[in-house]
Amino acid sequence: MNALKCRLMKLDNFTEIKNLAEHQLSSLCKDVRERILQVLSEKGGHLASNIGSVELTVALHRVFSSPTDKIIFDTSHQTYAHKILTGRNEQFPTIRQYQGLCGFASPKESAHDHFYAGHAGTALSLALGVAHARDLSGSDEYVIAVLGDAAFSCGLTLEALNNIPSSLSRFIIVLNDNNMFISESTGNINECLRNYVKQNKNALEAALKRIMPTKIPDTKISFFEHFGLNYIGIVDGHDVNALADAFNSAKNIQGPVLIHTTTTKGHGMPKAAEDPTLYHGVGCFDVKTGNLHKKAATSLTFPKIFGDYLTKMGQKDPDLVVITPAMPHGACLTDFFDTFPERSFDVGIAEGHAVTFAAGLAYQKKKNVVVSIYATFLQRALDNLFQDICLQELPVLLALDRGGLSPADGSTHHGIYDISFLQAMPGLVIVQPRDGDVLRDLMHSAFSYNRSVAIRYPNQTTHHSTDYTPTYRPLSKGEILKKGSKLAIVSLGHLSTLAFKLAEMLSQKGIDATIVDPIFVKPLDEELFFQLLEDHNHFVTIEEHAVNSGLGSILSFFFAKNQIKDVRLQMFGIPDKFIEHGDYQNLLKEIGLTAPQILEKLDIHEFFDRS
Amino acid sequence: MNALKCRLMKLDNFTEIKNLAEHQLSSLCKDVRERILQVLSEKGGHLASNIGSVELTVALHRVFSSPTDKIIFDTSHQTYAHKILTGRNEQFPTIRQYQGLCGFASPKESAHDHFYAGHAGTALSLALGVAHARDLSGSDEYVIAVLGDAAFSCGLTLEALNNIPSSLSRFIIVLNDNNMFISESTGNINECLRNYVKQNKNALEAALKRIMPTKIPDTKISFFEHFGLNYIGIVDGHDVNALADAFNSAKNIQGPVLIHTTTTKGHGMPKAAEDPTLYHGVGCFDVKTGNLHKKAATSLTFPKIFGDYLTKMGQKDPDLVVITPAMPHGACLTDFFDTFPERSFDVGIAEGHAVTFAAGLAYQKKKNVVVSIYATFLQRALDNLFQDICLQELPVLLALDRGGLSPADGSTHHGIYDISFLQAMPGLVIVQPRDGDVLRDLMHSAFSYNRSVAIRYPNQTTHHSTDYTPTYRPLSKGEILKKGSKLAIVSLGHLSTLAFKLAEMLSQKGIDATIVDPIFVKPLDEELFFQLLEDHNHFVTIEEHAVNSGLGSILSFFFAKNQIKDVRLQMFGIPDKFIEHGDYQNLLKEIGLTAPQILEKLDIHEFFDRS
Repeated sequence: MNALKCRLMKLDNFTEIKNLAEHQLSSLCKDVRERILQVLSEKGGHLASNIGSVELTVALHRVFSSPTDKIIFDTSHQTYAHKILTGRNEQFPTIRQYQGLCGFASPKESAHDHFYAGHAGTALSLALGVAHARDLSGSDEYVIAVLGDAAFSCGLTLEALNNIPSSLSRFIIVLNDNNMFISESTGNINECLRNYVKQNKNALEAALKRIMPTKIPDTKISFFEHFGLNYIGIVDGHDVNALADAFNSAKNIQGPVLIHTTTTKGHGMPKAAEDPTLYHGVGCFDVKTGNLHKKAATSLTFPKIFGDYLTKMGQKDPDLVVITPAMPHGACLTDFFDTFPERSFDVGIAEGHAVTFAAGLAYQKKKNVVVSIYATFLQRALDNLFQDICLQELPVLLALDRGGLSPADGSTHHGIYDISFLQAMPGLVIVQPRDGDVLRDLMHSAFSYNRSVAIRYPNQTTHHSTDYTPTYRPLSKGEILKKGSKLAIVSLGHLSTLAFKLAEMLSQKGIDATIVDPIFVKPLDEELFFQLLEDHNHFVTIEEHAVNSGLGSILSFFFAKNQIKDVRLQMFGIPDKFIEHGDYQNLLKEIGLTAPQILEKLDIHEFFDRS
Repeated sequence: MNALKCRLMKLDNFTEIKNLAEHQLSSLCKDVRERILQVLSEKGGHLASNIGSVELTVALHRVFSSPTDKIIFDTSHQTYAHKILTGRNEQFPTIRQYQGLCGFASPKESAHDHFYAGHAGTALSLALGVAHARDLSGSDEYVIAVLGDAAFSCGLTLEALNNIPSSLSRFIIVLNDNNMFISESTGNINECLRNYVKQNKNALEAALKRIMPTKIPDTKISFFEHFGLNYIGIVDGHDVNALADAFNSAKNIQGPVLIHTTTTKGHGMPKAAEDPTLYHGVGCFDVKTGNLHKKAATSLTFPKIFGDYLTKMGQKDPDLVVITPAMPHGACLTDFFDTFPERSFDVGIAEGHAVTFAAGLAYQKKKNVVVSIYATFLQRALDNLFQDICLQELPVLLALDRGGLSPADGSTHHGIYDISFLQAMPGLVIVQPRDGDVLRDLMHSAFSYNRSVAIRYPNQTTHHSTDYTPTYRPLSKGEILKKGSKLAIVSLGHLSTLAFKLAEMLSQKGIDATIVDPIFVKPLDEELFFQLLEDHNHFVTIEEHAVNSGLGSILSFFFAKNQIKDVRLQMFGIPDKFIEHGDYQNLLKEIGLTAPQILEKLDIHEFFDRS
């Protein structure tokens, strides 16, 4: 390992890649892959995509001159080799840790990372902008967009593809085709790619048999030809010299070029190549065997409880259908998908379509539709939610997974802005359960509200009862979890545990705080709050959401609207700045969402003035 | 006209279309077109698209059985003939008027209108959902999506296209190809369509010369083949019998079918066919000559003032570039586009791409980028704004046109939710100018803030000085427009005129109100508000935005955050329900945004208790 570290360290001046002999490139790839595996076996992280794109990355840096040439990675969870090769090998073991390297591209880290890009499908639009700016300014660097096959299921990529001028030169698209989205690949474009790969294989076999191969794939039928692209393919994505050759040829072609290269997600680690979905993102593992270390038995997470109960709902309700934009695994839907394949729709990375498609399925109540979507990705489907679901008054259930901090992923992935736009939608119900039981109550009740319902929950472990029979939760009914007086802590969802800690500390100071779980962010349980106002004059809101546009803001509006003046409202949540990645506890401390920090800021002297 | 009305009235039971002889269909089309022209000449509305799709609509109702068969119109501003033929001929003259027929499809109006669809690109996703629900439920109706060529520039359409199973039957896509977006057509897919049309024309000419035509277009190279679609084309979209034949053939094909039909936007009215952009949406006109009635000279609108000054900025700043998603005409950009074509980008109906593409152009400050986008369509680019602009800290200028009510268009088009999600974005500046001079000040100042700036303004006339030299507006500085005491009216943008009216009424009651223009919704001019709090204890906010998530809500949060308790805040804006179409004055009255209505609700008795 030390020898490896030394070899790679020398590459901190990565321009040396250009000076290596061809046969040395493969050794370099081996070293980089070993480094990734070594570090990830101890720290966890995105595995399969990163070890699958080592040769691709080395070849890019062999042929192009970053950062003058702009290499723009889509989604950018596959940039570990790129980070190692651009001066970040030393820091690489801090990947995804608090104040360490980001698991995605990060312009703050390096001039070689041009854009934040945790949400897939942006690379082509960005690259197109960079290339146009270059041409208007008269410089001549190459602009290279590196995309996976999954990105072509995303409307944003296709909009960009539609906008590439056939005259645009020094514009190179590298299609890293591993025939995998995060889960299984899907869609008609992917089907085209599979055909090209198959034809290519046939042609290779024919060539080996000394039969004259036809030009495969025939460019006349290439999907990409319709977009004015020159097509080079198919290149073996684990042959670093073949890749470098292809990139060099692309440099000399007039007009935009797409290089179609096939890679194996998880290449270089047999277990990961066998099950790339399992090894997409991993915890620690044995670097020799590839066996994942078993986690100590912990409580179940909200997504797991959601997924389990969803299958039960599916068993009772033959009209229940489930849609996911490429997240069956992460959102714990695999059980439902395996049990009810005909009622399961993985639409690819197509969040807008997922929501509008749901509207079609829910039309005239033919189907009871659940759209499972990460809170941060719902940002891509706001207009669809507005026009196709809310305006249409369709009772679709939106399951907003990863609502709250998404700690190790960081700024691109935190689901902390959703309430801001959801609350502006007339008729929409917004709820957040504090534990697995309330989650199941809400799932059980949602369709009976006969309105569109958004259930938001984080990827955190939580309490849940075994053999629980969910009960009906009436619309807009909050709950008092602990009755005190004067001071009421209003906590959103899982932060009720924080509320209890805070109440405990307050009780040590002789203050008997009330704890309220509103459950319904919208419509708010106004009756409950009016009732609380009878013997409380100090409200404290705690939420894992941008504080300026979440529960606290809604409560301040409620008080103002009802001209309630003699009340003190203190609001705790995510401050108005971007929050980076790290472990959950450190992030909570950074943003001030721990009991001691809140206690310190609580304006409670009046309790003592009066005593 | 009476005879025409009678003939059409009989068709209120539109199933009769099925019983007409073939030769009668053309007469029916003529009657419908005449009816549309007659009514629109007196009332205005979407003209060119509607008279261009008469034959298409008649043929659809000839062959399919609505509403059992589901005809789903994309964008749905071309549904006038459909409305006339499905029982709404009598009411047709009320189109786009207050409490009259909606200018788009409206499920509230008729069982033949399935979805609200003012925002383009949703039809295919919706139809796909309806078709899957049908198959899961075992019924056998046809599902027909009717799309323009412009819809294929929209990522949502392409996401849906990627998700059509090749096994899906009784699923028919009608591509109404008029080679026009609202303005000029654009993009690579459109280029493909143009080639097919050209090849088809060549083949027809060859056939006329008795030369054997090749099968045109060769299905092997059809763009749509990649999506598993059967392709029928090209059908003359003004030959109602040819269309009916094509629809009948499509009925019998296994798997999904796309029918490519060409129409002329504005067909049947020479002036409209010549300039379909001008005649896309019109005011009154002479039905015989087609001449548009000249409007009385009025003040300029915010969009016009914006467009004029943008050209001036472009003259001074060679790095200024402008992007629009298909709205150069509506957003008054044509002058800039004509003057600086190389710095003008119309990306088609691709709002997400427009914003992410802007990020690429603005990268490393190579270009000063203006994205002009309607407030309601920005809902399609929230995630792009979040990740690609705000997180990246790029100083892009977003010009949010149609911010506020979009009266005649109605519920799908009001730009009244944008502040809700914009204010959650860290670092973003949100401003709204009260008149044409402040608008130009803000445009002049925006890039110097070195942050992303959203300027929101309505499509209303406003004051502007001629030969005005814009002055620099410091970041976060509001303005007191009239100094009074105790009661402060805080009006957003153009509603300052309403604030002055209200102040005038208050002054008649002996109350000397202050009028404040915050200009900056974010960051709020906190200093100004603290200063106002010294001699004001009653604040009234007035805004053309959803009241629960706009300026009033932001002010309530500000007061709570700063523990300002002895203040009364009354917030007036758009209530939490969907607002339909109508004229501006009636809509304002409906939502209570007129001076007498606000006055009535103002809690001002305290002023008199004290006197």
